[in-house]
Amino acid sequence: MGPCAEIICVGDELLTGDTIDTNSAEIGRFLRLRGIAARRAVSVADATSAIAGALAQAGEADLCVVTGGLGPTRDDLTAAALARAAGVDRVRSPVALAAVEAALARRGRGLDPIQLRQAEIPAGAEVIANPRGIAPGFALEIDGRLVIALPGVPEEVRAMLAGDVGALLERRFGALARVRARRILRCFGLREAEVAARVEPVVDALRGDGPELDPLVIHYRAAGPEVDLTLDVEGIPAAAADRLERRLRAALGDACYAVGEVELSARIAAILIAHGLTLGTAESCTGGRVAAAMTANAGVSACFHGAVVAYDNAIKAAVLGIPMAVIEGHGAVSEPVARGMAAGVRAALAGHADIGVGITGIAGPGGGSDAKPVGTVDIAVDDGEASRYRRFHFRGDRPTIQRQATQWALWMVFHRLRERGLSSVSVVD
Amino acid sequence: MGPCAEIICVGDELLTGDTIDTNSAEIGRFLRLRGIAARRAVSVADATSAIAGALAQAGEADLCVVTGGLGPTRDDLTAAALARAAGVDRVRSPVALAAVEAALARRGRGLDPIQLRQAEIPAGAEVIANPRGIAPGFALEIDGRLVIALPGVPEEVRAMLAGDVGALLERRFGALARVRARRILRCFGLREAEVAARVEPVVDALRGDGPELDPLVIHYRAAGPEVDLTLDVEGIPAAAADRLERRLRAALGDACYAVGEVELSARIAAILIAHGLTLGTAESCTGGRVAAAMTANAGVSACFHGAVVAYDNAIKAAVLGIPMAVIEGHGAVSEPVARGMAAGVRAALAGHADIGVGITGIAGPGGGSDAKPVGTVDIAVDDGEASRYRRFHFRGDRPTIQRQATQWALWMVFHRLRERGLSSVSVVD
Repeated sequence: MGPCAEIICVGDELLTGDTIDTNSAEIGRFLRLRGIAARRAVSVADATSAIAGALAQAGEADLCVVTGGLGPTRDDLTAAALARAAGVDRVRSPVALAAVEAALARRGRGLDPIQLRQAEIPAGAEVIANPRGIAPGFALEIDGRLVIALPGVPEEVRAMLAGDVGALLERRFGALARVRARRILRCFGLREAEVAARVEPVVDALRGDGPELDPLVIHYRAAGPEVDLTLDVEGIPAAAADRLERRLRAALGDACYAVGEVELSARIAAILIAHGLTLGTAESCTGGRVAAAMTANAGVSACFHGAVVAYDNAIKAAVLGIPMAVIEGHGAVSEPVARGMAAGVRAALAGHADIGVGITGIAGPGGGSDAKPVGTVDIAVDDGEASRYRRFHFRGDRPTIQRQATQWALWMVFHRLRERGLSSVSVVD
Repeated sequence: MGPCAEIICVGDELLTGDTIDTNSAEIGRFLRLRGIAARRAVSVADATSAIAGALAQAGEADLCVVTGGLGPTRDDLTAAALARAAGVDRVRSPVALAAVEAALARRGRGLDPIQLRQAEIPAGAEVIANPRGIAPGFALEIDGRLVIALPGVPEEVRAMLAGDVGALLERRFGALARVRARRILRCFGLREAEVAARVEPVVDALRGDGPELDPLVIHYRAAGPEVDLTLDVEGIPAAAADRLERRLRAALGDACYAVGEVELSARIAAILIAHGLTLGTAESCTGGRVAAAMTANAGVSACFHGAVVAYDNAIKAAVLGIPMAVIEGHGAVSEPVARGMAAGVRAALAGHADIGVGITGIAGPGGGSDAKPVGTVDIAVDDGEASRYRRFHFRGDRPTIQRQATQWALWMVFHRLRERGLSSVSVVD
């Protein structure tokens, strides 16, 4: 067993529902990739007693990573709480002060007296550089356990993990335990129970062959139409893990689109680039989300040149060239309009989209009818050779419908690439 | 003091960095609006001992809301853990089974044997309907505290909170304590320290006038260029809270764009609709994110008809009408191109955008140069009467740069509306 960790996030806003905590996931992932298992993640209020209480309950953890509460304002109490827990004073650190001044100087600013607080850390703590923000972090030993305090801004956390924190962990824990071996099979279009119904008989049969798979732990994670199947194969011989993966991929068939941590949009981009193809989107109810998903990938300009958001019918007509008579005759959410958007965006982008995808639907909460209730979404893909169309009835609120429509639009593009023989499961990690 | 709660989220994926927990924020907000304070939120692994341990550490909490681990697969252990903690058996509940069968029937499906697990709940527990998914939730008393178990799918959590859970809480806790009074001043373009430097002297001066403001608690929350200032004014006379808010708004000036929980994109949409105006976006490095932000708001079709994502120069030329000589002469990230995009999208959308915003920049990680490093973003707003332009140098990774560019593009639109005298601070809650 390698070292284990507790993550403590400080901030009232995490408990009042004003902020979604992304730091726990970021830190959990960082630690996992260094062989350290996060056992718990706790969010507590901006109160010294709450911070100290979480630290006291960290049990057998060898490491606590605390985020938040290092800002310049009076509700920032982490340094005080950790100083008290360590039984030391909070002092103005010359190293921390120099870091704050240097960060301000890089921004062409001088020291505001209010920011002196950010240089006051527990006595004896080591300063952790913050390449993205003002407040430095710090590290100290409390009750024989390494405690690392970082600010709460996610971007600063990411940069500090990538910077000083890695070296600090290696110094403290020696050569870290290696990453637990795991394989992720990414699936689309099956429900979690359907994935399990295909997976569990395969696993049971292979387990019956001998004890090799005894250490196997399987996790399912569902997000809309996507299900990730994670196989924790630590302690299983590589040949047995390979056989397991092969059998599962066969059982999952076309539903498995990648092995490894790869987004569907990244898979699509890689295939498009490999074959010199381009994609364009024509979006109504998704409002640019499919384009945003594609452009999340660095280097996507090689295969994604543009998109038209045609939220209003007039844009569908004027920019995408769909006759107003078709829109009025069939309705904006209809097969001819979806197909027309997919074909029309290829023309509108002046030859800069070999494949077009059109999405038109009713995201709600208004706009539904008996014939086309909220959640009705029509998606079409057109590549000049063929036009594929499908109607969906999504459940959920507006953001959920928009998200599902975005995911399925990408899937229909991927499916068309597969139809053309351009894709096979790629193994990423 | 009203009742207080602990939130427990179950799932290895929350600790390995594979999933960001949004349920804690959703539940925290739901409870806050009912006068119940969430004291802690804990994420634990898929292990009965971890779930039971979190429950045992819930301290003085009157309520525990547990999410996750109610699925059909073998890593779903919440029902077993809670049954053990309550000292009861896990039994197949006829009510739960009927709910599972009904949910499947609504989807035109029969019961898969694997799904029987989802009807097995602690003996004596009350079933909580799940309008969006298959697995019902349940509630039971453990050690004199109400424990509510919900699935982990965020959309299902939302629907169940809005459904059975509210009634259950009212039954258990009687007429709930009222919501703590608070006011949120939303600010843009000032750093947290700058907001604090304006706020704290005002607060100190008013505190000097007498004890009325003694209960005041102030929280700052920074997310990129946005800072939310939350005033917890519970126990402060309304007149004093009003005076405080007025003075703070005066001190914050134009940086404060709304009082209440309202997104900047929603503020913009409301102003546009009130004045019969439309907005269109021309996006390069933001890749559709500004359009996505606008279309997150229901009813936005009254003021947002469409957008052009011009990721490639050829689209900037062909669709937005920017001469290729301008793009090649000044570079794709340049003032003339940004201004051309803002003006060009008004023409490209055929009169369906009174105001155009153009965003062109280098999101990275590649594509930077000494003259225009990664993070250089040019944004322009054009409404026919005037064209406004600004160059930004954002720090951070690709998603951070894209997010900041999106926020600032919206801010420049808002700023232009303000220049035209169309906006004042709106008070929402």
